[in-house]
Amino acid sequence: LYKCRPFTICIPSILVLGFVYVAYVLIGGVVFWKLEGDLGMKDVSYLLEKKERLLSTYPCLNQAGLEAVAQVRNKNVGLSLKRNYTADGFWKFTSSAVFAATVVTTIGYGNICPSTTGGQIFCVFFALFGIPLNIVVLNRVGKKRLTCTRFFIHFVCYICGVVLFFIMPMIVFKQQEDWTHAEAIYYCFISLSTIGFGDFVADSNPDKYYPDWYSFLIASWIFFGMAWLALVINHSIEILERLNNYFKKQFKKNDNQ
Amino acid sequence: LYKCRPFTICIPSILVLGFVYVAYVLIGGVVFWKLEGDLGMKDVSYLLEKKERLLSTYPCLNQAGLEAVAQVRNKNVGLSLKRNYTADGFWKFTSSAVFAATVVTTIGYGNICPSTTGGQIFCVFFALFGIPLNIVVLNRVGKKRLTCTRFFIHFVCYICGVVLFFIMPMIVFKQQEDWTHAEAIYYCFISLSTIGFGDFVADSNPDKYYPDWYSFLIASWIFFGMAWLALVINHSIEILERLNNYFKKQFKKNDNQ
Ligand SMILES: [K+]
Ligand SMILES: [K+]
Repeated sequence: LYKCRPFTICIPSILVLGFVYVAYVLIGGVVFWKLEGDLGMKDVSYLLEKKERLLSTYPCLNQAGLEAVAQVRNKNVGLSLKRNYTADGFWKFTSSAVFAATVVTTIGYGNICPSTTGGQIFCVFFALFGIPLNIVVLNRVGKKRLTCTRFFIHFVCYICGVVLFFIMPMIVFKQQEDWTHAEAIYYCFISLSTIGFGDFVADSNPDKYYPDWYSFLIASWIFFGMAWLALVINHSIEILERLNNYFKKQFKKNDNQ
Repeated sequence: LYKCRPFTICIPSILVLGFVYVAYVLIGGVVFWKLEGDLGMKDVSYLLEKKERLLSTYPCLNQAGLEAVAQVRNKNVGLSLKRNYTADGFWKFTSSAVFAATVVTTIGYGNICPSTTGGQIFCVFFALFGIPLNIVVLNRVGKKRLTCTRFFIHFVCYICGVVLFFIMPMIVFKQQEDWTHAEAIYYCFISLSTIGFGDFVADSNPDKYYPDWYSFLIASWIFFGMAWLALVINHSIEILERLNNYFKKQFKKNDNQ
């Protein structure tokens, strides 16, 4: 299967690729560990100090009470502890539709999730047919945009995309959500790449009032932005594979000489 | 561009597809709203009642105190309120590597996220090159398995995959994490489809001790399971497109008659 020169060791390319993959993830792990680790430690000690201060400020509160209060906040149903009155929970029609959209796009912010067994089972089957549908639709939209084939037009497309899907949303999110520039860009990328950590979620702060056009804007931003970013990612895969083929050819040439 | 019979209205197929897509998401929204809405209301009233009970049990605790306690729990740094001592936070090397893996696979559980600006910016660039790499690797592994082409062998492949990637992990998760059958299956699907809500995350309960082989098993399960599920989803897209072509041909036949 693998033609080799004599006295060279043959390594199947999948193994090399696998090694690069594992190394990439481990190096990433080390960087995150170094970047976040120290602050994480500070955070933990800060929180422990705060916990001690709470226990002394409210003398009636014991360990069990602390856990009970934490548990109330722990269940995510869109309940704000600040307001005394309650909105009708998270599961209104509009937010259910947004939830359904995060399922089929596989963003899955998870700031809210189905908690009933029925909801969980429906979620599985809803995603099973919805994810392929979403991929087919995105591919169609992506192909429509593939008409700009020359390098310069490509370049203009990319710049326009960055402005339209990153710079402009960043300004809007900064205004509406009071995030920093870095946080807004981070949110844009984490959403459009469908990673969707859910540490920042637009249009979901129960203590804020949003304008009517806001959620519509977010929906269209996510849809067209995902189509655009899928295109960019497809292109970088293409470039990677072309580079791979180029090096294979070079290798063969050297082999024949 | 679109050849039509006289007196028929021509609708471009992208519009039909778009309509199906929007309808699918909206119908899903309605189902989630109905399934979860009532329980959500119950949850909210239950939590409000619990909050009132807490305020009366711990008379020294006022609204401000309640918010302060909730805030301590709100920051996710892997801190357990139950134990008095603290582990060294979440950002150890092993969990940082797991975090890096959830980034490149775009699962993004988000039970833990970078909170420093440096970590957030690194995360963006780490994902920008890691996601294409992950897709390339998964495609390679997927193609290796495409050697079973006949229907019967396909069918056996599917059944084996379901047993290997759903039934067996379900049994393990049920034992190790004390989840119900439905919750374990839901977790399997939400992980392998890369939705990753993060409402259930294996190997991350700070109050539990896990065996050593556990995290290695999860890592290989996620990797090979994702390759397998990507194959299944690719096949269903292929089937959808074949059906589409079939109906187009039938339509043309009827046209020519
Ligand atoms: K995700
Ligand atoms: K997610």
